[in-house]
Amino acid sequence: MIDTDLIATENRRRAEDLRRDYDALGQQLDRRGVDIEAVKAKVAGYGVAIPSWGVGTGGTRFARFPGPGEPRDVFDKLDDCGVIHQLTGATPSVSLHIPWDKADPARLRDKAAAVGLRFDAMNSNTFQDHAGQALSYRHGSLSHTDAAVRRQAVEHNLECIEIGRAIGSRALTVWVGDGSNFPGQTDLSAQFERYLDAMGAIYDGLPSDWRLFTEHKMYEPAFYSTVVQDWGSNLMIAQHLGERAYCLVDLGHHAPNANIEMIVARLIHAGKLGGFHFNDSKYGDDDLDTGAIDPYRLFLVFNELVIAEGRADFAPAHMLDQSHNVTDPIESLMLSAIEVQRAYAQALLVDRQALAGYQQDNDALMATATLKQAFRTDVDPILAMARTERGAAVDPVAAYRASGYRAAVAETRPAVSGAGGGIV
Amino acid sequence: MIDTDLIATENRRRAEDLRRDYDALGQQLDRRGVDIEAVKAKVAGYGVAIPSWGVGTGGTRFARFPGPGEPRDVFDKLDDCGVIHQLTGATPSVSLHIPWDKADPARLRDKAAAVGLRFDAMNSNTFQDHAGQALSYRHGSLSHTDAAVRRQAVEHNLECIEIGRAIGSRALTVWVGDGSNFPGQTDLSAQFERYLDAMGAIYDGLPSDWRLFTEHKMYEPAFYSTVVQDWGSNLMIAQHLGERAYCLVDLGHHAPNANIEMIVARLIHAGKLGGFHFNDSKYGDDDLDTGAIDPYRLFLVFNELVIAEGRADFAPAHMLDQSHNVTDPIESLMLSAIEVQRAYAQALLVDRQALAGYQQDNDALMATATLKQAFRTDVDPILAMARTERGAAVDPVAAYRASGYRAAVAETRPAVSGAGGGIV
Amino acid sequence: MIDTDLIATENRRRAEDLRRDYDALGQQLDRRGVDIEAVKAKVAGYGVAIPSWGVGTGGTRFARFPGPGEPRDVFDKLDDCGVIHQLTGATPSVSLHIPWDKADPARLRDKAAAVGLRFDAMNSNTFQDHAGQALSYRHGSLSHTDAAVRRQAVEHNLECIEIGRAIGSRALTVWVGDGSNFPGQTDLSAQFERYLDAMGAIYDGLPSDWRLFTEHKMYEPAFYSTVVQDWGSNLMIAQHLGERAYCLVDLGHHAPNANIEMIVARLIHAGKLGGFHFNDSKYGDDDLDTGAIDPYRLFLVFNELVIAEGRADFAPAHMLDQSHNVTDPIESLMLSAIEVQRAYAQALLVDRQALAGYQQDNDALMATATLKQAFRTDVDPILAMARTERGAAVDPVAAYRASGYRAAVAETRPAVSGAGGGIV
Amino acid sequence: MIDTDLIATENRRRAEDLRRDYDALGQQLDRRGVDIEAVKAKVAGYGVAIPSWGVGTGGTRFARFPGPGEPRDVFDKLDDCGVIHQLTGATPSVSLHIPWDKADPARLRDKAAAVGLRFDAMNSNTFQDHAGQALSYRHGSLSHTDAAVRRQAVEHNLECIEIGRAIGSRALTVWVGDGSNFPGQTDLSAQFERYLDAMGAIYDGLPSDWRLFTEHKMYEPAFYSTVVQDWGSNLMIAQHLGERAYCLVDLGHHAPNANIEMIVARLIHAGKLGGFHFNDSKYGDDDLDTGAIDPYRLFLVFNELVIAEGRADFAPAHMLDQSHNVTDPIESLMLSAIEVQRAYAQALLVDRQALAGYQQDNDALMATATLKQAFRTDVDPILAMARTERGAAVDPVAAYRASGYRAAVAETRPAVSGAGGGIV
Repeated sequence: MIDTDLIATENRRRAEDLRRDYDALGQQLDRRGVDIEAVKAKVAGYGVAIPSWGVGTGGTRFARFPGPGEPRDVFDKLDDCGVIHQLTGATPSVSLHIPWDKADPARLRDKAAAVGLRFDAMNSNTFQDHAGQALSYRHGSLSHTDAAVRRQAVEHNLECIEIGRAIGSRALTVWVGDGSNFPGQTDLSAQFERYLDAMGAIYDGLPSDWRLFTEHKMYEPAFYSTVVQDWGSNLMIAQHLGERAYCLVDLGHHAPNANIEMIVARLIHAGKLGGFHFNDSKYGDDDLDTGAIDPYRLFLVFNELVIAEGRADFAPAHMLDQSHNVTDPIESLMLSAIEVQRAYAQALLVDRQALAGYQQDNDALMATATLKQAFRTDVDPILAMARTERGAAVDPVAAYRASGYRAAVAETRPAVSGAGGGIV
Repeated sequence: MIDTDLIATENRRRAEDLRRDYDALGQQLDRRGVDIEAVKAKVAGYGVAIPSWGVGTGGTRFARFPGPGEPRDVFDKLDDCGVIHQLTGATPSVSLHIPWDKADPARLRDKAAAVGLRFDAMNSNTFQDHAGQALSYRHGSLSHTDAAVRRQAVEHNLECIEIGRAIGSRALTVWVGDGSNFPGQTDLSAQFERYLDAMGAIYDGLPSDWRLFTEHKMYEPAFYSTVVQDWGSNLMIAQHLGERAYCLVDLGHHAPNANIEMIVARLIHAGKLGGFHFNDSKYGDDDLDTGAIDPYRLFLVFNELVIAEGRADFAPAHMLDQSHNVTDPIESLMLSAIEVQRAYAQALLVDRQALAGYQQDNDALMATATLKQAFRTDVDPILAMARTERGAAVDPVAAYRASGYRAAVAETRPAVSGAGGGIV
Repeated sequence: MIDTDLIATENRRRAEDLRRDYDALGQQLDRRGVDIEAVKAKVAGYGVAIPSWGVGTGGTRFARFPGPGEPRDVFDKLDDCGVIHQLTGATPSVSLHIPWDKADPARLRDKAAAVGLRFDAMNSNTFQDHAGQALSYRHGSLSHTDAAVRRQAVEHNLECIEIGRAIGSRALTVWVGDGSNFPGQTDLSAQFERYLDAMGAIYDGLPSDWRLFTEHKMYEPAFYSTVVQDWGSNLMIAQHLGERAYCLVDLGHHAPNANIEMIVARLIHAGKLGGFHFNDSKYGDDDLDTGAIDPYRLFLVFNELVIAEGRADFAPAHMLDQSHNVTDPIESLMLSAIEVQRAYAQALLVDRQALAGYQQDNDALMATATLKQAFRTDVDPILAMARTERGAAVDPVAAYRASGYRAAVAETRPAVSGAGGGIV
Repeated sequence: MIDTDLIATENRRRAEDLRRDYDALGQQLDRRGVDIEAVKAKVAGYGVAIPSWGVGTGGTRFARFPGPGEPRDVFDKLDDCGVIHQLTGATPSVSLHIPWDKADPARLRDKAAAVGLRFDAMNSNTFQDHAGQALSYRHGSLSHTDAAVRRQAVEHNLECIEIGRAIGSRALTVWVGDGSNFPGQTDLSAQFERYLDAMGAIYDGLPSDWRLFTEHKMYEPAFYSTVVQDWGSNLMIAQHLGERAYCLVDLGHHAPNANIEMIVARLIHAGKLGGFHFNDSKYGDDDLDTGAIDPYRLFLVFNELVIAEGRADFAPAHMLDQSHNVTDPIESLMLSAIEVQRAYAQALLVDRQALAGYQQDNDALMATATLKQAFRTDVDPILAMARTERGAAVDPVAAYRASGYRAAVAETRPAVSGAGGGIV
C-alpha cells in the first residue's frame, strides 16, 4: 500500500487550488440551482469494481509487451487493486476470474480485508483450455454439440458459484466465445438452444440471493457468428432463464455506430439491465480506457442511469473491463474509475425539469443544449474534493508515481518476457 | 399487358438451349441425390410481393431523376405490376401504401383481378405530412409527445386496415420514422412507451385473421435515435402486443457488419418472424436491387428459411422493397424477384443430412463447403423452366424490351421533370 | 437584423455572472501557464462560413417538414445569415450554391455589405437537374460517359467561377454525386479518368488567385461506388490538377470508425488540406449539428489544426454544412458556429510542451490526459466574453428568441407545405 | 508428400463425372462465345503463394487451440506447403516470416526444391519482441520516437532482404503494428515522418530487381491510430519511396463497408498496386478463409485485375493470409487457393464487349447482369480439369483425408497444449 503520509503531503500541496476551484464551481452550480455538496456526496458514494485480470498488462493476438512488476497471482493482483482504491476511493471491490484466480477462499477473504476490498461478481472461463481439463473448448463450451463438453462447462460455472459463496460474492457473470467462423459451421438455432439448456442448469444452481449476468458480444473470438451476439439475444436468454437473470452490457461489444445508451434504456425498460463492463472503443472490442475515445457517449449512458435511479430493483453492477497494453495498468484503472465518476457527476448536473419541458415541447435544440451544458461542466473539483475528504489522493497518478510502488513491486515480482499472442 | 404471342416467340428461340442446360443440371443434381423436378415445383410455387411504390423511379434527398412513363396513380402501378408478374410468374401480389394508393376499393379489386394480382400487406404512412392533414408528423407520429398527434396516427392505421379489409388484404405493416436527431431531444424510454401504447390501440383494431408487422430500422430519417432501432426493440414490441404481432426484417435496416441470417434465426426461435422486405445494401438503407451486392448473404437468409420450413405457424410474408434510381423499375423488380427465387432454389439444394453430420462433428470446413456447393450451383435453368412452363418469359428482360411496353405507356403517361429531394 | 438595444439589454443581464466565471477561469488557466486574454483574442479572430442553403429547413428522401418563415431566395438567406453573424460574431461569410442562389452580382454584393457579410467559396451543382438544362445528370455529370454532358457540367462550373469573381469569392468547391448503384454499372477506372479530364478543364479556368476544393464522400447519392469516395482518391485528384487544387474534408463523409483527425493530419502532411465542411454524424452523412454527437472528435480535429497553425500556405477554409430538419436553422447554425469556436479554444489550451515530452517518452497515459485536461475545460466564458466585447450576444439563442425574428419574417415569407423527399 | 498413386486412384473415380460436367459447361460457354480450353489454360497458369505461418493453427487474443501435428519449424511448414501444392497445383511458392522461419539458406533452398516450391516475398516482423532483441517494440518500431529502436527495425528488414537474396526471393513485405491506443499518445504527423525516414533507409537497401510492398491496415494491434491506416497513406508512402515501392492490399484491413475493388482500381490507376493478401472477413481483420463470407466481393476484385491484365509493369503478387483457428490449416489453404482460382476463372468469363457497351449506354441493369452471369457460372469443372491434367487432385480435401497425412505427421510432431492469447 501507499504511505498515507505521502498522500497527505501530496494533497496538501494541491489543497488551496482545489478549494478555490471547488468554490468557484459551487457558485456557478448554485446559479443553476444545483447543490455542489449533494453532487459530491453522491459521487463519494459511488464505486466501480476492478477486474482482477485488469492489473496485468494486456495484449493482442499479435503480441503482448509486459511491463515491470507484473502480478504473479491473485494476491499480487489484490495488492495492486488495493492501491487503486486507496488512491481513488472509487473502486471498493474486485471481480475474480476462475480458474486464473483460484486460491484458498479464506486466504482470499483475509487478503481482501487487508487491502480494504470486497469481492464483486465471479467470472467463469470456458473460452480457453486449462491445464488438466478433460475436454477441449475448441469448438465451443456451453453450446458445444457434445453434451459432455457442455456438462463440463456447466460444472465449471457451478464451481465458480461455490468459490464465490465462500468469499462473499453475489453474482456470476457468464461470457462465452461460442459461435462459428464459417457459414454453416453450426446450426444457429440448435446452438442457441443448447446454450439455453446449459445456462438453465447453471441458473438452477444459483443461490437465491445471487444474480446471473450474461454478456453479449458481436464478434471475437468467433468471426462469423456468436451465440450471444447482441442485446436482443441476451434479452431472450434473460427472459428464458428467470427473474434473477440479467443482461450485462460491455461498452465495446456492439456493432459500429450502435446507439448504446438506447440499448441501455431498452434493457432498463425490460427490467433486465444487469450491469456494465466499462471501457472505450474506436473500432471493435478495443478494450481501451473508459472515456478515452468518446467521453460524451459515456455521459449519455450515465444520463440513462440517472434517469432510472430509484426504480424498484434497479441496481446495475458497475465494473471496468479494459486491456492495458501500453500503460501501467494501475494508472489506467485509476484514471478510468475517475472517468466513470466524472460521467456520473456530469449526468447528475442535468437540469431534469428544464429538459422534460423541452422534450415535451419538441424543442430539440434546447433539450440537447441542456445535456451539453451538464457535460461541459468541469466537475474535476467535485471528484478531487470527494477523494481528498476520504483520504484518497487529489491527483492519484502523481501520488502513485511519487510513491515508487511500481519499482518496488518489480523488485520482488520477476520480469516477464514479451510473447506472441495467438498467431504464433 | 404484354402480348402472349411475343412471349411465346421469345421463349421458343430459347427453348432448345434451356432444355439442354436443364437436362445437364438435372443429371448433375441427380448424382447429388437431388430431384430437379421437385426443386422446380417448389420454386414455381413461390411468390414475392411487389410494393406499389416500387414501380416508380426512386430518388435520394439530393435528387430524383424520373424516367419515361412514370405511373400516375395506383391503377398505372397495378398495370406495371401485372407486367412483372406476367413475365416472371413470381410476383402474384401487390402491397399498397396509404394514402399514396387510396382509391375506391371496388375499382382496386377489379383492376387487380384484371391484371392477375391480389393484395398483400397494407402499409401506413405517418412519416410524411399529407395534404389536408390536421397535425404534423415533424416531431413524430405514433410516439409523439402530443396525444392528439398519436391519435391521428393511430386512426390513420385503422383506416389502412379498413381499406385492406375491403380489398382482401390480411396484414398491416407499420414503419415509422419516429426518433430523434439530437441526444436529449427525446426521453428514450418515454418515447418507447408512447409508441407501445399507440401500437396497442392499432392492435386492438386488428381483425382476428390479420397479422401486424412492425419494422425496425437503425437510422434514417432520424439520425441519432430511432424508436424501433433494431430487432431487439422489435421483439419487445411483438411480445408486448400479442400473438398476431410479428417482426418484419428489411435486409437494409441493420448496423454495419450485422449477421442478418442470425437475426432471422433468432426471430424464428422466438416465433416472431413476420416477414421480409428484400433489397440489398452496401452502406446503409441503400434499397438496391435484391442480391446486387452480396448474393451469398441472401442465400444464407434463405438457408435459415428452408431449415424452418414446415414449422407450425411459420409463414413469413415476402416482399421486395427497393428504390430504383437509375434503372427501369419494372426491369429491376423482375430481376430481383428472380434473385429471390434463385436464393430459395439454391437453399433447397443444400445436402441437409451431410450438413447435419458435419455440424455434429465440428467439421467446419466440410460444413461450409456443403453450403458453398449449393450456392455455386447455377440454378438458372430451373428458374427459367418454371417460368416457361407457366407461360412467363424465359428471359423476362428481353421479352419486356422487345414488347415496347415502356415506350407505349410513356405515350399516355405525361413526362415528369426532375426534382430535388429533401434538401432544397 | 436584430435590434442592438435588445442585444445590449440581454447582455447586461448576464454581464456580472459572465465576468465572475471569466475571472475564475482566467485564474485557473493562469496556474496552467495559459493567458486567457490571448486565447480570447484568437477565438475572436476566428470565423466559420455559413452555407446559404443551411438557413432553409432540410429533409430526407422520406420527407421535409418546413418551418415558418422559410427563406424565399438568396436575399432572404442573406438576411438570416446576417442575423447569425450579428448574434455570434463568428460567421463573417456566406457560401453560395449555384444555380440555387443565382442573382444579379451587384445586388448580391450590396445585400451582403448591408448585412455585414462577405462571400466564401462558390459551390456548383451537377447532382440535380435544373429547369432549362439541356442534358440530364441522371447517370453522372463530370464523369458521364457522354462528352456533351461532361462539357455541360464543366461549363456550369466555369459559370460558378464567373459569378464568384463578380462577388469577391476566391474559391470553388466541387462536389459531385457521380458513381454507380451496381457492380459493373461503370468502369471504375475509366470513370475516374473522365472525371480527372473534366476537372482539368475547370482547373484551367481557375483564376490565378483562386483555390479549387474537391470533396470526397463514401456514398450517397450513389450506393455502390462513388467517383471521389475517400481522401485517397481526393488526394490523387489534387495531385493531378496542380498546386491550387486542394482536398475538402466534410466530417460526415467517411467510413464507419474512420479516424478523421488522422486523415486531416495526412492531408496537412501532403500540403493538400483545403478546408472543412463541419457537421456531426452518428451513422452516415447525417449532417447533424457540429459537435452534437461526438464533441471530442471535433476537438481532436482542431488539435491537428492548431499543431499546423503557422505552416506556410496553411489556410484551410472553414464552413458549416448541416441539414436542419427539426430545429430552427438559425438557432442550429449559431450554436454550431459556437461549437466550432469551442473546439478551437480547447485545442489552444493544450499544454504543447508537456505533451511533446510525454510523446517523446511514450507516456501514453499522461499524453492523453494532457489533451483531456484541455478538452474538459469549460471555455464558455471565453467565447461569451469575445462575443459581448464585439457587440454580439452573450446568449445568442436567448437574444434571438427574445427578438421575435422568426415570427416577423414568417409574416412576409409565405408558408411552405410539407413535401415528400426523393421517394415519391 | 502424398502418394501419387492414391491421387491417381481418387481422380479416376471422379473422371467420368468430371468429363461430363466439363463438356456440358464447355457447350454452354461456347454459346456465350467463350472457349473453355482457353480459360482452363489461364487458370492452370495461375498460382497464389502460401504464407509459411498459415500452416500452423492460428488463434485470438483469447485463446489458441492447436491441432495434431502442428509444424515445429520452417522445414515442417515447407512439407505442409508442399502437400498443398501437390494436391491443388495452385500454390507454387511460399512466403517466409523472419525471424520465425530463420534457417540456413542452403537448407531452405534444398528443402523447397524437394517439395516443389519456390520462395515468394519475405516478411519482416517488428510487431513482436523476439528472444535476444536489444530494444522493445512495445511503443513502435519503424516509427518509434527513439532513433535506436528505428535503426534496429531497419536493420532487421535489411537482414530479411539478405536472407531473401540467398533463397531467391524478389520482394520484401513490410507490415508494422505501429500506431497508438490513445488520442495524443503520438504526434500523428511526426510519427508518419519517422516511418517514412526509416522506410527510406530500407528502400535504399533494396536490390535493384526487388520490389518493396507496404501494407495498410485500419486497426489492430493499435486501437486508436495506425501509422499506415489506409490506402491513402499507403499511396503516399509508395510515392515517397520510389518506383519499386508498391502498396499491398490485405482484403481484411479496411473500414466497414469499404468498396475494396475500387481501392484496387485506384491503386492500379496510380501504378502502385503491389499485390494482395487474400482472406475474408465479416467484422474486422478476421482472417477467415478466402471467399468464405462474401465470394462476390472476391470476384469483383478479380474483375478489376482481369481488366488490368496486360498493362505494362502490372504484376501484382498474390498470397493467401489467413488464420485457421477451427480447421486443419492444410485443408483451409487448399480450398482457399481454389476459391482464388474460382474468382479468377469467373472474371475471365465476363463478356467484356457487351459490358463495355452497356456501360457506355448507362444500361446499369444489363451491365450488372453481365457480371452476375459470369459469377454464377459454376466453373468447378474447369478448376478440377486443370488440376487433374497436372496430376493434382480432382478433390483435394478428399485425397488429403484419404492419405492420412495429418495423422502421420502427428506421430513425429509433438502435441502442443492449448494456450491463452494476449490477454493472460
